[in-house]
Amino acid sequence: MSRKNAFYAQSGGVTAVINASACGVIETARQHRDKIGKVYAGRDGIIGALTEDLIDTSKESARDIAALKFAPGGAFGSCRYKLKGLEENRAQYERLIEVFKAHNIGYFFYNGGNDSMDTAHKVSQIGKSLGYPITCVGIPKTVDNDLPITDNCPGFGSVAKYIAVSTKEAAMDVLSMSRTSTKVFVLEVMGRHAGWIAAAGGLAADNPGDAPHIILFPEVPFNQEKFLAKVKKTVETKSYCVIVVSEGASYPDGRFLADAGNKDAFGHVQLGGVAPVVAQMVRDNLGYKFHYAVADYLQRSARHIASQTDLDQAYAVGKAAVKMALAGKNAVMPVIVRKSDSPYRWGIGEAKLGRVANKEKILPKSYISKDGFGITAAGRRYLEPLIKGEAYPPYKNGTPRYVRLKNVAVPKKLDSDFVI
Amino acid sequence: MSRKNAFYAQSGGVTAVINASACGVIETARQHRDKIGKVYAGRDGIIGALTEDLIDTSKESARDIAALKFAPGGAFGSCRYKLKGLEENRAQYERLIEVFKAHNIGYFFYNGGNDSMDTAHKVSQIGKSLGYPITCVGIPKTVDNDLPITDNCPGFGSVAKYIAVSTKEAAMDVLSMSRTSTKVFVLEVMGRHAGWIAAAGGLAADNPGDAPHIILFPEVPFNQEKFLAKVKKTVETKSYCVIVVSEGASYPDGRFLADAGNKDAFGHVQLGGVAPVVAQMVRDNLGYKFHYAVADYLQRSARHIASQTDLDQAYAVGKAAVKMALAGKNAVMPVIVRKSDSPYRWGIGEAKLGRVANKEKILPKSYISKDGFGITAAGRRYLEPLIKGEAYPPYKNGTPRYVRLKNVAVPKKLDSDFVI
Repeated sequence: MSRKNAFYAQSGGVTAVINASACGVIETARQHRDKIGKVYAGRDGIIGALTEDLIDTSKESARDIAALKFAPGGAFGSCRYKLKGLEENRAQYERLIEVFKAHNIGYFFYNGGNDSMDTAHKVSQIGKSLGYPITCVGIPKTVDNDLPITDNCPGFGSVAKYIAVSTKEAAMDVLSMSRTSTKVFVLEVMGRHAGWIAAAGGLAADNPGDAPHIILFPEVPFNQEKFLAKVKKTVETKSYCVIVVSEGASYPDGRFLADAGNKDAFGHVQLGGVAPVVAQMVRDNLGYKFHYAVADYLQRSARHIASQTDLDQAYAVGKAAVKMALAGKNAVMPVIVRKSDSPYRWGIGEAKLGRVANKEKILPKSYISKDGFGITAAGRRYLEPLIKGEAYPPYKNGTPRYVRLKNVAVPKKLDSDFVI
Repeated sequence: MSRKNAFYAQSGGVTAVINASACGVIETARQHRDKIGKVYAGRDGIIGALTEDLIDTSKESARDIAALKFAPGGAFGSCRYKLKGLEENRAQYERLIEVFKAHNIGYFFYNGGNDSMDTAHKVSQIGKSLGYPITCVGIPKTVDNDLPITDNCPGFGSVAKYIAVSTKEAAMDVLSMSRTSTKVFVLEVMGRHAGWIAAAGGLAADNPGDAPHIILFPEVPFNQEKFLAKVKKTVETKSYCVIVVSEGASYPDGRFLADAGNKDAFGHVQLGGVAPVVAQMVRDNLGYKFHYAVADYLQRSARHIASQTDLDQAYAVGKAAVKMALAGKNAVMPVIVRKSDSPYRWGIGEAKLGRVANKEKILPKSYISKDGFGITAAGRRYLEPLIKGEAYPPYKNGTPRYVRLKNVAVPKKLDSDFVI
């Protein structure tokens, strides 16, 4: 059989536009039926491959696949599950090959962030190491925007837009109440080790001095004295103070401001609850009335206010991944290349998976203002194009009409189970 | 002088569409220059009247006033400040009359919720009690939707839409991650004593069994055992569980699930943080991994996803208030009258302020499902029309372009200060 099927899976935290990448993959594959048979999606990511739980996307109508552009979450399910090294767990890789062989899978598309590109890179090597030829292409996705090489990551633009819009709106609310009520508002945003999302809060400001008045980045060690002094000065001069704080904000010794002590499947400390910590610190030391919001999953699922730029790029990397695979390229990932800031122009480039995996890109110093509490003009120049355009979904009865796929299982061919 | 000026003020917590009511007042007043001179807005609500800090809205262009329809927050500032009774603080009322006389104010428009309608009602009586003739009209506004007589309150439809949309989106995110990650998601929403906003979360469900699986209303005493059993059953059958919890959810003895002990200017207990309490309860008893979001001000300032129905009604009550005042009606408030559910038709009626003030309308039993954890078809029938239509604001560079008025102060005529 020269015509091979493709495997596509979503991995790690989902985004408002990860399904647009899926749409790009499936629509492009359907245009090349001579080379790619069916696209099988892993139910719940790579776990679907290991357990032979595959979804036959050919059972979905063209209309439903097109509607993936509008749906947040992961249409086929995602997972937090990282493959170990070949030496540590050879059985995992042998199982993958067993499943791929059984279903004539010759293309492997893995849509995720740092940890996922590590998995993709490992799979890309099984052709050589285990003698099973597979073309493996990573597809970038992460709200954290922390993948290297690519100028930005699909998924980030939409969360950035959500945070910028929400900060702007909440600031107008707080300002109007500040005389007799809330003076300090704290918005907690995602971003474990990189302050990209927090930085996006800075786009809420139309003019210098506008909210947010303080951004707390993971990249800038927290200095309580300096912070409180800035809050006090801001309230005294502007009557209110809006603070955007990254969940990854931490003390000089590396301790997170809010370390809950839980760990996720990748062994990362699971964070949450920095907003109340910061708000209470302000109250205890300065006595101001506060409110705080924790955006949590709302920020990364907010498809209703997705960025058009982000949507376009998410689709484009899905499409490009298939094109790369068809060109016989293995162990690569399409990246976004910025050609100019204003007007913003971008294209698709290519990176080797080995250079992407397990690397984190943090906010450059040049994007953080001197006092450490805001973004610079250079930061704004980088961020602004990424949130441009409103890619509104269709609505019915007041809420978005988000497609639900049938997700029909591919009949199993193996009689062996695999325990995750 | 037969032509009198008007005083307009915003009061209490602001909403995504309170400025649309301001727009309705000002545009309608401008159409009747023969009877209404200028519209003076109180800076920071009634405090602006007491301190003679008035804003001359005639200095704003027609274009900027029209743009108020798109701006969240309170364009002139709001306040949490309740007038005492005439017997308790006669000086306040005498001061109001002094300011009104100095600025030839004959119309008083007060845009707020329960507490504010109490203030408006008191002011409406000073004509009789203190011999100063003023026409006083209340304009309903509250995200809590708890004013009596009116079918619903402007401000509610937009927060309801935000909560319904956000719940739907976050649920799709959680579902796709539930196999290996988060199983329980908790969204905390506003609504101190009335569960209207929490109920709106129910609109996220397109079909029976869809998220949210559990809504915790202030109207239903919290039963931990029943709650945990439902969470467990939901996770076991659906793999995930989405919970919408009202900040006002409380134990059978009336104690709030999250009582922070703080009180606001009206003496109400200030709440916050029920989501982590509920999430931790699930974790401690059932061991499920959780995430939670606290929408806080984001929900009531989310003009970017305001309901068109809500916007239309907010404008309409502002316009109607001026019409009522011109008809010489005192101590009244325009209300929204529902004429039919489907198709949804509504009109404007009239209520006496004395019948509105200090009364709270809670969620009727018929809108809450038998097990106390969801909404009924009747509830949905009531709620759904209120969130219909997307009243998108204009955007520039990726964020909404929200007007900022010049807010030019009216020159003071009195040489006395008034201490708040």
